[in-house]
Amino acid sequence: MPRVSQDHLDARRSQILDGARSCFARHGYEGATVRRLEDATGLSRGAIFHHFRDKESLFLALAEDDARRMAEVVARQGLVQVMRDLLAGEGDGPDHPAHWLGTRLEVSRRLRTDPEFRARWAERSQALTDATRERLRRQHDAGNLRDDIDVDVLTAFLELVLEGLVSHLAMGLPADDLGPVLDLVEESVRRHRRSG
Amino acid sequence: MPRVSQDHLDARRSQILDGARSCFARHGYEGATVRRLEDATGLSRGAIFHHFRDKESLFLALAEDDARRMAEVVARQGLVQVMRDLLAGEGDGPDHPAHWLGTRLEVSRRLRTDPEFRARWAERSQALTDATRERLRRQHDAGNLRDDIDVDVLTAFLELVLEGLVSHLAMGLPADDLGPVLDLVEESVRRHRRSG
Repeated sequence: MPRVSQDHLDARRSQILDGARSCFARHGYEGATVRRLEDATGLSRGAIFHHFRDKESLFLALAEDDARRMAEVVARQGLVQVMRDLLAGEGDGPDHPAHWLGTRLEVSRRLRTDPEFRARWAERSQALTDATRERLRRQHDAGNLRDDIDVDVLTAFLELVLEGLVSHLAMGLPADDLGPVLDLVEESVRRHRRSG
Repeated sequence: MPRVSQDHLDARRSQILDGARSCFARHGYEGATVRRLEDATGLSRGAIFHHFRDKESLFLALAEDDARRMAEVVARQGLVQVMRDLLAGEGDGPDHPAHWLGTRLEVSRRLRTDPEFRARWAERSQALTDATRERLRRQHDAGNLRDDIDVDVLTAFLELVLEGLVSHLAMGLPADDLGPVLDLVEESVRRHRRSG
């Protein structure tokens, strides 16, 4: 029996994640049945659960994937840019990030009531917090950030606004007027240069 | 047959709303079955649906009730105070507002995909937006607010942070460090007095 190459395993893993993401986005967490996951990925349940222990692990792998991709944007351009990208993705298509992000809201009850699930979730979101804090520290050292407020507070502030934006988009609320709001958010963490 | 007094009707309506709120908080929107709503309110389905057309209308009446109560706090103390009150309610008890507010997140898919439901929801939340804008206008006229940013943008900013806080609490994420974040939010809409 030939050894399966790492490339092949990685490709298969990506195929599963992509299909699962759109399946969760379309049907929600509960609605993403094993049958639908098979349809969406084009793979058998045996193949899917060879790579991921169960549906929960698959879901958390997607959350981790999100956090890592957002962290990459954060490192280069900051968390407000992540928010601008989310806003720019606005529209009605089934691939709009709101559909997937909305699925995250649907598991809020589970997150609130199941400490183990919450811990696994938090672990997987940590990359984003770390990247945000790291970026703010660098901005601070470069003199671009206000220095009267702790970097941890600024990190928590930006994350709270991101959570609000995710919730807002996931609920399908009008978002065309949020650009200037993000400008205000960005300005709120910057050093205030006195003009007068 | 004696005429039922308005007081009696109002009391009955409150009884239904109180029971339904805790039922939704405990079991979620889907989990709040008619049987459970009967148990929680101590009333028959006939009595409940005499006052509210259906479960959706009951749910939206609670959203309206929230918006009105928050609007009262906003009128006196502003939207940041509403957020501080939410934070202060933190804890693990079943009556914590996070449990009820979490139920609102669970309907996000429905809000996103059902324009009629979204319109009914928006109509019922309008009181809060109106109160926030009104309060900010008064603060602006009193010279307490920054005047370089439109009041509508400041309103949307505060509402976005509130959405983030609701989501954060509903997910059971740690919130003990959010006080200073709300200070920053408050300061971001205030007039900046130059100290130097």
